[in-house]
Amino acid sequence: MVDIVHRVGIKAPLDMVYRALATREGVAGWWTTSTQGDSKVGGMLKVRFTSDGKELGGFDIKVLELEPGKRVLWQVVEGPEEWVGTKVGFDLKQEDGFSIVLFKHQGWKDPAEFMYHCSTKWAIFLMSLKSFVETGEGAPSPGDVRISNWH
Amino acid sequence: MVDIVHRVGIKAPLDMVYRALATREGVAGWWTTSTQGDSKVGGMLKVRFTSDGKELGGFDIKVLELEPGKRVLWQVVEGPEEWVGTKVGFDLKQEDGFSIVLFKHQGWKDPAEFMYHCSTKWAIFLMSLKSFVETGEGAPSPGDVRISNWH
Repeated sequence: MVDIVHRVGIKAPLDMVYRALATREGVAGWWTTSTQGDSKVGGMLKVRFTSDGKELGGFDIKVLELEPGKRVLWQVVEGPEEWVGTKVGFDLKQEDGFSIVLFKHQGWKDPAEFMYHCSTKWAIFLMSLKSFVETGEGAPSPGDVRISNWH
Repeated sequence: MVDIVHRVGIKAPLDMVYRALATREGVAGWWTTSTQGDSKVGGMLKVRFTSDGKELGGFDIKVLELEPGKRVLWQVVEGPEEWVGTKVGFDLKQEDGFSIVLFKHQGWKDPAEFMYHCSTKWAIFLMSLKSFVETGEGAPSPGDVRISNWH
């Protein structure tokens, strides 16, 4: 089992960062504009991605934990085989005037090339989260930063 | 043992990407302008970082492998305790008109918070590498993208 981990610091109060992670509207602001569903514990979020008008697929995600100002935890239930069953967690804390996000995508069976791609892409989306919360403008799909032939 | 992994695709020939990784001048173009030393097998690179004119320290890196167009492998011999002994590798290949960089920073003893930070920061520096090779302009330290209170 291998994990993808990241850390970013956001110049904004914890509750603003939490809302960007814990609500459908928030997630649509930094990950993908095509975010549907209900962000409550036990609820499901459906995120879909497109590139140049082409459907790239996406994930159905179950919301496992929502702890205001502290923690959001998801589990992937549908999507690419490598993602199904994995958990995506965001732990929040305050430090030096920043809201710190400790990110962990855990449960990868195999450190295949797709995991390398997802690791970099998560960093890009966390920078989009930072920008969304700090300035009101993120870079969610389909306007996300392209990193390779896999987009 | 846990690893940091990333994947980026660069719209440029393999040998241009290789040169950006395998030469002192190349590394200075995307990682830190303060890159000294001799990039040959068995040689040492000394990379240093500053922020707002303040010295943040850096790493002394031994060059273990240089395979033109294919692979660069480093080992950290001086620097923060967590980095000493770790290996940083870049494997290159061509795909769909991109030069693909498979990055691995391996040998971390412990997935501590500093590793989370370094994972995100490596993604940012690999995007700097991509920009440096594609456009001639990277974002090396001290002009690197700030991601948190830890810079």
